Amino acid sequence: MKSEGINLFDFVSPIDYRYCGRDEKIREKLGPYLSEQAFIRYLTKVEAALTNTFAERGVCSKEIAQEIEKASRQITAEEVYLEEDRIKHPIMALVNCIKRRVSGKVRAYVHFTATSMDIICTAEATRYRDFTNNLLIPKLLELEKTLINLARLEKKTVQIGRTHGQYAEPITFGFAIAQYVSRLGSRITKIRDTANNLRGKIAGAVGAYGALSVFIDDPVEFEQQVLSKLDMKPSPISTQIVEAEFMTDYVYAIISAFGVLANVADDMRHLQRSEIAEVQEFFGKEQVGSSTMPQKRNPVSFEMVKSMWKAIMPRIITVYSDQISEHQRDLTNLESSKFIAEILGVFYVCVSLLKETMSTLAVNKANLKKNFDMGKDLALAEPAHILLSAHGHPNAHEHVSKLVSESQKTGKAFAELLFEDKAVEDYLKSFNQKQLSIFTNPETYIGVADRKAEDICRYWERKLAL
Amino acid sequence: MKSEGINLFDFVSPIDYRYCGRDEKIREKLGPYLSEQAFIRYLTKVEAALTNTFAERGVCSKEIAQEIEKASRQITAEEVYLEEDRIKHPIMALVNCIKRRVSGKVRAYVHFTATSMDIICTAEATRYRDFTNNLLIPKLLELEKTLINLARLEKKTVQIGRTHGQYAEPITFGFAIAQYVSRLGSRITKIRDTANNLRGKIAGAVGAYGALSVFIDDPVEFEQQVLSKLDMKPSPISTQIVEAEFMTDYVYAIISAFGVLANVADDMRHLQRSEIAEVQEFFGKEQVGSSTMPQKRNPVSFEMVKSMWKAIMPRIITVYSDQISEHQRDLTNLESSKFIAEILGVFYVCVSLLKETMSTLAVNKANLKKNFDMGKDLALAEPAHILLSAHGHPNAHEHVSKLVSESQKTGKAFAELLFEDKAVEDYLKSFNQKQLSIFTNPETYIGVADRKAEDICRYWERKLAL
Amino acid sequence: MKSEGINLFDFVSPIDYRYCGRDEKIREKLGPYLSEQAFIRYLTKVEAALTNTFAERGVCSKEIAQEIEKASRQITAEEVYLEEDRIKHPIMALVNCIKRRVSGKVRAYVHFTATSMDIICTAEATRYRDFTNNLLIPKLLELEKTLINLARLEKKTVQIGRTHGQYAEPITFGFAIAQYVSRLGSRITKIRDTANNLRGKIAGAVGAYGALSVFIDDPVEFEQQVLSKLDMKPSPISTQIVEAEFMTDYVYAIISAFGVLANVADDMRHLQRSEIAEVQEFFGKEQVGSSTMPQKRNPVSFEMVKSMWKAIMPRIITVYSDQISEHQRDLTNLESSKFIAEILGVFYVCVSLLKETMSTLAVNKANLKKNFDMGKDLALAEPAHILLSAHGHPNAHEHVSKLVSESQKTGKAFAELLFEDKAVEDYLKSFNQKQLSIFTNPETYIGVADRKAEDICRYWERKLAL
Amino acid sequence: MKSEGINLFDFVSPIDYRYCGRDEKIREKLGPYLSEQAFIRYLTKVEAALTNTFAERGVCSKEIAQEIEKASRQITAEEVYLEEDRIKHPIMALVNCIKRRVSGKVRAYVHFTATSMDIICTAEATRYRDFTNNLLIPKLLELEKTLINLARLEKKTVQIGRTHGQYAEPITFGFAIAQYVSRLGSRITKIRDTANNLRGKIAGAVGAYGALSVFIDDPVEFEQQVLSKLDMKPSPISTQIVEAEFMTDYVYAIISAFGVLANVADDMRHLQRSEIAEVQEFFGKEQVGSSTMPQKRNPVSFEMVKSMWKAIMPRIITVYSDQISEHQRDLTNLESSKFIAEILGVFYVCVSLLKETMSTLAVNKANLKKNFDMGKDLALAEPAHILLSAHGHPNAHEHVSKLVSESQKTGKAFAELLFEDKAVEDYLKSFNQKQLSIFTNPETYIGVADRKAEDICRYWERKLAL
Repeated sequence: MKSEGINLFDFVSPIDYRYCGRDEKIREKLGPYLSEQAFIRYLTKVEAALTNTFAERGVCSKEIAQEIEKASRQITAEEVYLEEDRIKHPIMALVNCIKRRVSGKVRAYVHFTATSMDIICTAEATRYRDFTNNLLIPKLLELEKTLINLARLEKKTVQIGRTHGQYAEPITFGFAIAQYVSRLGSRITKIRDTANNLRGKIAGAVGAYGALSVFIDDPVEFEQQVLSKLDMKPSPISTQIVEAEFMTDYVYAIISAFGVLANVADDMRHLQRSEIAEVQEFFGKEQVGSSTMPQKRNPVSFEMVKSMWKAIMPRIITVYSDQISEHQRDLTNLESSKFIAEILGVFYVCVSLLKETMSTLAVNKANLKKNFDMGKDLALAEPAHILLSAHGHPNAHEHVSKLVSESQKTGKAFAELLFEDKAVEDYLKSFNQKQLSIFTNPETYIGVADRKAEDICRYWERKLAL
Repeated sequence: MKSEGINLFDFVSPIDYRYCGRDEKIREKLGPYLSEQAFIRYLTKVEAALTNTFAERGVCSKEIAQEIEKASRQITAEEVYLEEDRIKHPIMALVNCIKRRVSGKVRAYVHFTATSMDIICTAEATRYRDFTNNLLIPKLLELEKTLINLARLEKKTVQIGRTHGQYAEPITFGFAIAQYVSRLGSRITKIRDTANNLRGKIAGAVGAYGALSVFIDDPVEFEQQVLSKLDMKPSPISTQIVEAEFMTDYVYAIISAFGVLANVADDMRHLQRSEIAEVQEFFGKEQVGSSTMPQKRNPVSFEMVKSMWKAIMPRIITVYSDQISEHQRDLTNLESSKFIAEILGVFYVCVSLLKETMSTLAVNKANLKKNFDMGKDLALAEPAHILLSAHGHPNAHEHVSKLVSESQKTGKAFAELLFEDKAVEDYLKSFNQKQLSIFTNPETYIGVADRKAEDICRYWERKLAL
Repeated sequence: MKSEGINLFDFVSPIDYRYCGRDEKIREKLGPYLSEQAFIRYLTKVEAALTNTFAERGVCSKEIAQEIEKASRQITAEEVYLEEDRIKHPIMALVNCIKRRVSGKVRAYVHFTATSMDIICTAEATRYRDFTNNLLIPKLLELEKTLINLARLEKKTVQIGRTHGQYAEPITFGFAIAQYVSRLGSRITKIRDTANNLRGKIAGAVGAYGALSVFIDDPVEFEQQVLSKLDMKPSPISTQIVEAEFMTDYVYAIISAFGVLANVADDMRHLQRSEIAEVQEFFGKEQVGSSTMPQKRNPVSFEMVKSMWKAIMPRIITVYSDQISEHQRDLTNLESSKFIAEILGVFYVCVSLLKETMSTLAVNKANLKKNFDMGKDLALAEPAHILLSAHGHPNAHEHVSKLVSESQKTGKAFAELLFEDKAVEDYLKSFNQKQLSIFTNPETYIGVADRKAEDICRYWERKLAL
Repeated sequence: MKSEGINLFDFVSPIDYRYCGRDEKIREKLGPYLSEQAFIRYLTKVEAALTNTFAERGVCSKEIAQEIEKASRQITAEEVYLEEDRIKHPIMALVNCIKRRVSGKVRAYVHFTATSMDIICTAEATRYRDFTNNLLIPKLLELEKTLINLARLEKKTVQIGRTHGQYAEPITFGFAIAQYVSRLGSRITKIRDTANNLRGKIAGAVGAYGALSVFIDDPVEFEQQVLSKLDMKPSPISTQIVEAEFMTDYVYAIISAFGVLANVADDMRHLQRSEIAEVQEFFGKEQVGSSTMPQKRNPVSFEMVKSMWKAIMPRIITVYSDQISEHQRDLTNLESSKFIAEILGVFYVCVSLLKETMSTLAVNKANLKKNFDMGKDLALAEPAHILLSAHGHPNAHEHVSKLVSESQKTGKAFAELLFEDKAVEDYLKSFNQKQLSIFTNPETYIGVADRKAEDICRYWERKLAL
């Protein structure tokens, strides 16, 4: 095993050479939680917490616990992996590495009474919790803030709403963005809650506290005492491993938040289509859009977020499959769960990328207006048929449909046709001023879009203490 | 379209001819929530709630609202589908059917200001919520109760714990079952919470309350008023549809609960293996195990649950994909979301089947003991190396490993080898009585398995008010 | 069990009440292959083939075989399911039903030496093979023909090509369609090949021909003889079941073909966007686009195909999971494999729907031209930089990029800027006539799009004998 | 970007620090195909092939082509990524790097007329093809050989066959292994065929050969000429990218082969269960089974293969999703397709691991016999009921079922009960010698298991030229 002096591009996984490891700043941020080095560090934290609790209970001396804690801090991933190569067991490898660094009689208390999965489950839960609180949530809040700013800024900017990719009724662009403020907000709270509900365990080989019970009368309380040193709570009951669903809930929260990001990305890249062009990703001065088409200004960041979602989302299947473990556990979830770090790394990178992209997004007001102007006439078909109905027309929807068809055939504006239509003349006369004004100012037919956008922004600002 | 007088076996989907529709009692239970007839019924409930609210607000008269509500109740799926065949729009078809049954001027107030998805989103949320509260949760509680009973009954029944399919350390069978009590308990609360957090909307074509605002000054409050008639809350903000994540969370809760069922099933079917035979599914007097092997007693119910989980679990991918909807929505989630009813139906059937199977499960104490006796000697390797360590042995794990190897080679009991081993004689002497007794009574080395099982049962009994 | 006189809308699965069972014509086509009634019919065909082969080998008389075959033909799904309810075994239920209809001594030869999975595996393979050859392939060929017609008709219709949703370089609309001709063509051959490579087995309980060998010296040849009556070949070797991969390959072929359909649908629905409007789904005279927006003309068929793909595609995970069966097999693939019929039914419906939609698609030449005209100027950036390069310009890509930026800033046409640019004047002079003509007639810059479209159409016409 | 001197354990992806990059020998093998360095190298190969073809056609001189080829060979991933950081375009970055290394007038012919995806699609196809032929297939053949050896060695070793985890009828262990010989064999040919059917393209920005056509009269033939230098064939027709299905077919072949590996792994780890113990993974002298249970000998390699399959299999969903690309393509498949290298790397590692594990597998004949002895008596129920039937018993299955029940209740052997049973006495008398001998020698009731095992081995040896 050669672990030093590796070249980034000798690797197989795009995770490291491309997304999480390429930018040194990102690597330095993610490293302390998601790297294998970090995993080893968290394992040793759990080992130290265990021995310290034994010392508090008088099972071993404080000096012994201190010696073990000190030794644990010096362990590197390299030496653990080298030892694992020899004995084919990752945690026994770690234990051996610690033992080598402590004096004879101290050795007995390294990993005392614990099973490997006590240490692994607890370390995984702790590092993902810390990653979430220290790194992911702050970045998500930055994205949320960016969306709130945009929603507010554009809350009165009229846009033609689209359903089925077809012009529908007017909204405002800020209202459309407020959707994502709300949906992302709900996902942030879910990620936070599930991360802080991840659980550890110190319940031994089959979860029954067999070995612990030989030395400790209240092993269930002892477990709580160990875990509280890491600010963790125990699994209500364990086999060799923690109940699977705490992790399943957490990864679900991540994946469902990724879905919201993907929807933002999809929405924006379509709004950047040549024919629509209501928004545009920032395009750097030296940036190149195509190796053969110098004219191209592509929504590459939005495409990247969508592409990453396609790569990561299906992995939830693995997480669901890992809910099943035979009897007191089989090992078929060990390697598969290692990839959770990939999911988290990519998600962080995408949150970060989307935040950058949305905060530098160019909103093209002229095109928003141009498209609105193209859609606004036929959008009047809705208020027309509803108002006609309300004023007593027996078949308003059908009648308006015919006018729409005529407008589409002749190219004459629907509103014009409507107000020239003898058949509805009497109904129109009974429209009040406010109702009539819709037909001359369709941009006022936005309901409460702006108010709603503001309400949503304010709600999440408070809720998330932004 | 011929919708009457169909033969059950002329159909393609196993959902109906095999799982949900075969047993009349199940069909009658599921029908009022999950059938298409039920869907239409819930749609009309929403239409009625809408008009009634307009009447309360004075937009139309109470008589009008009553006429519409009465007409709505008479609508059948058949006529709606026939109309849809003509006009290619499911909700307009429903609206037309209602309109045909009311007098001229009343027609204007059918579906007044609403968009189709106001009605559909709200109806789906309401019927799944009702299905969950009225049918699914009670059945889940029955299963939970069954598991609690079993866990309690067997909380002192010693079993050899297994990891990697290999004998590990002792537990009790009730302790193993208590795992599922705890995991299923947490899923039941999640299903209940997410079902009761499903949301409706009455926010119009693009979610901005455009049409409503023409008639109502406070459309956001109006929306709440409509939905409160169905005991529903609105989506915080809507496009044409409700924020996707309320439904995503609900289906996630279902699928992750299905994973717990699948784990129970997998565990039990392996415990029924010929060589293990610690449990056995009830085998009916007239039941046949194989068409060619009359001796077979197969765990077919457990296999069925696992098989169903394999069929249903991947469908979460569809639900995640449906989080993405372009702009104010595209329709590519309409057909795909129709299959949520399949997921719910199959899940209900599996909860029901597992409840039956677990409540009639034969626990073979003789085989539990036989297997425990085979595993108990080597299980002593754990307490041996930990106690040797605790009494000062510098390399207890390694030394015990050698004794284990010797035991496996010679066939001589590990405990015997241990107590004959001169090299550890001095350490053994310092063992206290309690510690020594483990080696003569390995069945006491179960930690707090029985107490923990009881605690878990009690916790969930209270929490779920069983 | 009540199986007669069911109402279509009392069911849970949208498969039957909505997609495959709603239209009587579709139901009548799919029924003979995909319904449970059909499954029973195919099971009896296999039973008959088995007994007939025994008769040919002299193990039983021809009369016995004939009596069994005759009885088999009378079996209905209802009676089999009723018997299954009693004895909890589907094939033994079938066997009992046949036995009841034959005379005493004949009974011994019903299902003689066979295991249930001999019959089930073979019946499934046979009915899916027949479904594919008789129903699916002809429908796929209709779709392919429709695409070929469209590709040919529009092979010279210039369209602005789009990458990243942005205008790129010119193509023709027929060329774009020819993509799908080619991709669908390759899928049709794959579906045909894998369907006709589905396998049966008559190898007994654990695949070793144990029972058969008692009566037959050459059981491997006997198996071929039975299967040849159904035009089937045996699995090279079997456990209780056929090697899984024949079915996996087949379902893969279906799912990957569905991906091509989904791509067509996605492409078209985007081309129907209000701002693009190059194509439009047929919109019926009485069709309604929205219950509140009479102006809507939505691409509902394309959306439906995409939505169905989202519903069906993830189910391949189930098929992959079913590759794993413990030892000589476990039953956890029985229920899950029942859903293959759903996959096939939905796929057929979507092929059919897409064929209808594509054959009535309105191609809007005016909008194709309008969009091309908007994109054609900047599309010249590609030939500009390549030709400048070819004529010796050292930094053509960069230089052209600057002109593009200027064009986008000033609104002045790129071609104009190019030909006014002193810095490239000398290079432009050396362009030959053909090269220069690109800049005045960008619609000629379509490479060999039309020829390629024609070649692809011709290739598949021949290959598929259309 | 810091790409040199990285520590292996600072990374996030387990792919590199754990599976593909940990063992230097594996890293050195996979690196030349699957690393990013390798990708860059293949890109430059395609660029060189392109320019060389232009030289052959006289579009540029041979010297120019040679200069470009030479420069291309010197490119490193580091410099390309640094340039990409500046201009945000991966292929333009590569092109710039090459251009910097060539003289002024040569620059024009770097990447001449090509679009990025011409180079990327072709490079990906070529490197995966080479990886498959040079590395993966040889390793797969080693595994196949190992399985053949085992199947042959144990073709006469009687084993009790198991269905539903329950004793069924006798087979031989070699027969069980021959299953995997056959299934893996079919997958090897599929992987080989699909890898060698991967396609490239040199058809330009939108696949219509626009730019090429300016310089070349027969661009379709030109494309073939370029690709033939890499032993590749072109996509029948392209958009900006190759038809998706060539890659989909290839990844499908890999994933479906992985399913066979997972089945082997699952089978073996269950056969290693404490109670069954018919096989055992090699356990190294210094290997440790558990950090707290020195007695453990776990099937960790089999568990690892299964776990990896769970991690990788769901990723096929990404590949299917990438079949869809809007219009002439969107970029949402770029990042997602990068992960194909991960799939290939992990699959290779698992093939390698399974080969090691199967070639050192301990087959425990004593336990095979012990288990067979436990199952053999009831296994006679099959031949009993079939022979009774064949000799005229009217209800043999039912009658034998009763004897089975009695045997299970009383513990008395079934065979004994049968031959003491007055009710069948007369039938038994008419059994011939061969038939009777089954009941005294149940180990002969293995059909043609051994012959079939041998036939399968021989077939695949020839077919794969082993």
